[in-house]
Amino acid sequence: MTEKTKLITPRLPRGFEDRTPGEIAAVGAMISKIKAVYEKYGFDPVETPLFEYTETLGKFLPDTDRPNAGVFSLQDDDEQWMSLRYDLTAPLARFFAEKFETLPKPYRSYRQGYVFRNEKPGPGRFRQFMQFDADTVGAPGPEADAEMCMMMADVMDALGLQGKYVVRVNNRKVLDGVLEAAGVTSDEQKLTVLRAVDKLDKFGPEGVKLLLGAGRKDESGDFTKGAGLSDAQAAVVLDYVSGKPPADNEGVAELNAMQALFDAAGYGAEKIKIDPSVVRGLEYYTGPVFEIELTFKVQNEKGQDVVFGSVGGGGRYDGLVSRFRREPVPATGFSIGVSRLANALKLTGNLGATEPAGPVVVLVMDKDQTARYQAMVSELRQAGIRAEMFLGSTKNFGKQVAYADKRNSPVVIIEGSQEREQGILQIKDLIAGKEAAQAISDNAEWKAARPGQFEIRREELVSAVKKLLSEQG
Amino acid sequence: MTEKTKLITPRLPRGFEDRTPGEIAAVGAMISKIKAVYEKYGFDPVETPLFEYTETLGKFLPDTDRPNAGVFSLQDDDEQWMSLRYDLTAPLARFFAEKFETLPKPYRSYRQGYVFRNEKPGPGRFRQFMQFDADTVGAPGPEADAEMCMMMADVMDALGLQGKYVVRVNNRKVLDGVLEAAGVTSDEQKLTVLRAVDKLDKFGPEGVKLLLGAGRKDESGDFTKGAGLSDAQAAVVLDYVSGKPPADNEGVAELNAMQALFDAAGYGAEKIKIDPSVVRGLEYYTGPVFEIELTFKVQNEKGQDVVFGSVGGGGRYDGLVSRFRREPVPATGFSIGVSRLANALKLTGNLGATEPAGPVVVLVMDKDQTARYQAMVSELRQAGIRAEMFLGSTKNFGKQVAYADKRNSPVVIIEGSQEREQGILQIKDLIAGKEAAQAISDNAEWKAARPGQFEIRREELVSAVKKLLSEQG
Repeated sequence: MTEKTKLITPRLPRGFEDRTPGEIAAVGAMISKIKAVYEKYGFDPVETPLFEYTETLGKFLPDTDRPNAGVFSLQDDDEQWMSLRYDLTAPLARFFAEKFETLPKPYRSYRQGYVFRNEKPGPGRFRQFMQFDADTVGAPGPEADAEMCMMMADVMDALGLQGKYVVRVNNRKVLDGVLEAAGVTSDEQKLTVLRAVDKLDKFGPEGVKLLLGAGRKDESGDFTKGAGLSDAQAAVVLDYVSGKPPADNEGVAELNAMQALFDAAGYGAEKIKIDPSVVRGLEYYTGPVFEIELTFKVQNEKGQDVVFGSVGGGGRYDGLVSRFRREPVPATGFSIGVSRLANALKLTGNLGATEPAGPVVVLVMDKDQTARYQAMVSELRQAGIRAEMFLGSTKNFGKQVAYADKRNSPVVIIEGSQEREQGILQIKDLIAGKEAAQAISDNAEWKAARPGQFEIRREELVSAVKKLLSEQG
Repeated sequence: MTEKTKLITPRLPRGFEDRTPGEIAAVGAMISKIKAVYEKYGFDPVETPLFEYTETLGKFLPDTDRPNAGVFSLQDDDEQWMSLRYDLTAPLARFFAEKFETLPKPYRSYRQGYVFRNEKPGPGRFRQFMQFDADTVGAPGPEADAEMCMMMADVMDALGLQGKYVVRVNNRKVLDGVLEAAGVTSDEQKLTVLRAVDKLDKFGPEGVKLLLGAGRKDESGDFTKGAGLSDAQAAVVLDYVSGKPPADNEGVAELNAMQALFDAAGYGAEKIKIDPSVVRGLEYYTGPVFEIELTFKVQNEKGQDVVFGSVGGGGRYDGLVSRFRREPVPATGFSIGVSRLANALKLTGNLGATEPAGPVVVLVMDKDQTARYQAMVSELRQAGIRAEMFLGSTKNFGKQVAYADKRNSPVVIIEGSQEREQGILQIKDLIAGKEAAQAISDNAEWKAARPGQFEIRREELVSAVKKLLSEQG
């Protein structure tokens, strides 16, 4: 390389991140537990590629105010636009429509993978993140919606979150009935009302009332414009929010049917609860909607105690396949935000999985003896022990041990010329060594005591390491 | 939806594909076996996002003849170009350089994930496919390269391919020495010579000789232009190909050191073999190169017997990090083509993993009794049995059983009004039923015998299904 070559700064585009061994292990363990629940419920895995034609995704864009923003798109050689999927639902619609003739109906599937949003990233908001979905396509009744809610509850139980979550359920038809009764007709006003209802948990009935009327000023003085309802209109919405469902409403009947199924299957209100303030999604859903809320408290960035909140949700979206086929195809499903759920499990101590333990490291004391060290490593590996020879360029003993320490190595193996002549090995127990080091303050004392270090015969290598690892637990 | 709405054809952009439950299960099982080997060797997982800045990937493009073709790129809001990764090595270089201060050195990592090529797809050539790599960065010696070869052999053994593969090893410095001795100086001629050497397996020494000289005409009459070497020049290359290594060559010394390590660790020539015809990559590698070849025969599209061939490979690439940092960072690694290896395992019967067995299906005989059916399903699931209620819109008994059949369901559960009054259930063993059906030709006889169907008491549901499933095996 010439002096003139300009170095490139190693960095990632904003909103993207690398994942560490600990995160990979934790998410992997979490995903297998979720999979086991989905499979017990009769769902089968399927995987679609990361690209779809843009027209395939079009209608289901998350932000309908900006129909072509928010996705990563590029033009193919044949000038057709392709986009990276922004969720796992739109690709399911394409898949189901494409394989319509051969798939079993209802079609139960689960799907896990990365999705992409071409949006401004922020704290905890990434442009690539993982979702884990389950959907039943071709099932019209509330039985399918109820099953989704029970499966979400079972997933939370399987992850050890008993008593720390609630699945909250509502129905878009109920909300639509209330909006109609209140005389709210414009789409824009509807959205503002729904957003206000969604804030019940956060601001209470008084706050919702302000947001339904002229607007609400928060503590910092910021003003949120309200929906501009009259007092009489707002009263209809507030009645509903405070627990009075509209009479003679199809959505209420569906919620009652779901409640009967929860009762029959033994899911009490501590697990699944019908809740009029659940809004979830604005254009997308056509019937029942549900979300998993984690109810334990965490501190937000301002140091205030707040509930952890939603880690996933879903609902019925009967328009799913209608872009591709004329007949109606009812569908229901939900999506789990994998990173957010993993963060929650970290906070509650339910994450469980840990990285693999560090490897046994065989030090390279003599550069011309690597074949001997390699043979030791091979013996250990054949015995199922995680092991490696030090492969760096340094001959320095201390630096090699420092490497082993950094790898969380439990043991290093040392064979210098003296040991080789005597047919022995030095075994250095790094865990005992670390403990002992805390008790020894003097360097000379350390060198004399050599805590955690002992000799074995060369042929005892595998048995001695096995014994030591099992003693270390 | 109005009549006028134009339906969209559900389809994928070319070169992308959906994956079935069977493929997902098989690849998952294969990957866990490979991971176990990598971890035993002291490698830790890491994952980078799918996007990198285009300038980050630049130098390591697979096809250096077309430095900016072959990748999917798009411009970010701030006008910087981003690309989807085309392999797992270039992102490793960025990651290692970015985390240089904190990573242990040598840094051993394995990485699994999708990569993207914006190229013309063909049979078995996709634009999104999975790779599974392992690399050691910061290890200068042939010990690190030898370890890669042994790890590849262990991966093949762990997958059950003993005796069906060979890891073939060569060294770019040897090839460079031969080219120099033959007086080949232009880059273009070098490439043509290396491509000719790479064809030894396919065309034999005679074929290579033609490709080194004027060119070679195949059976169909197609002519491949040769490298245009003189007979004397070609003789130098052919000498080498037939097994005479150049004297006094650094690459030969490295290969000898690697061979000593293979011997010490007990890897014979049936597993790892030094082979002068291995070329692999043209610009990229700086020392040892290796590839895993599956040696069993398969039929190609013309019906000819050919060896299955390469399923992965790699080598030393000491220029890896030099785009980001001034100091030299030696590195070695290899990559496995996941789909290609899975295909090979399918052919040899070593794929092993199967889809989950079909669910027990509780039929919906009365629409107003779904809470009862739901309770049955919940009991079965709580007992760990994969089960579901039929959720489709049809009330037709035959169609519901056909659905269960399509799902490979082992058992359906039937409770009509008569059974409900008597407190019993009908259990229909679909596996026994299918076998019996082959022996019965008459429909009336079928209805009378109802093969595989029997009654139990309602409270025996879980125990009876468990018993039946265990009898079915």
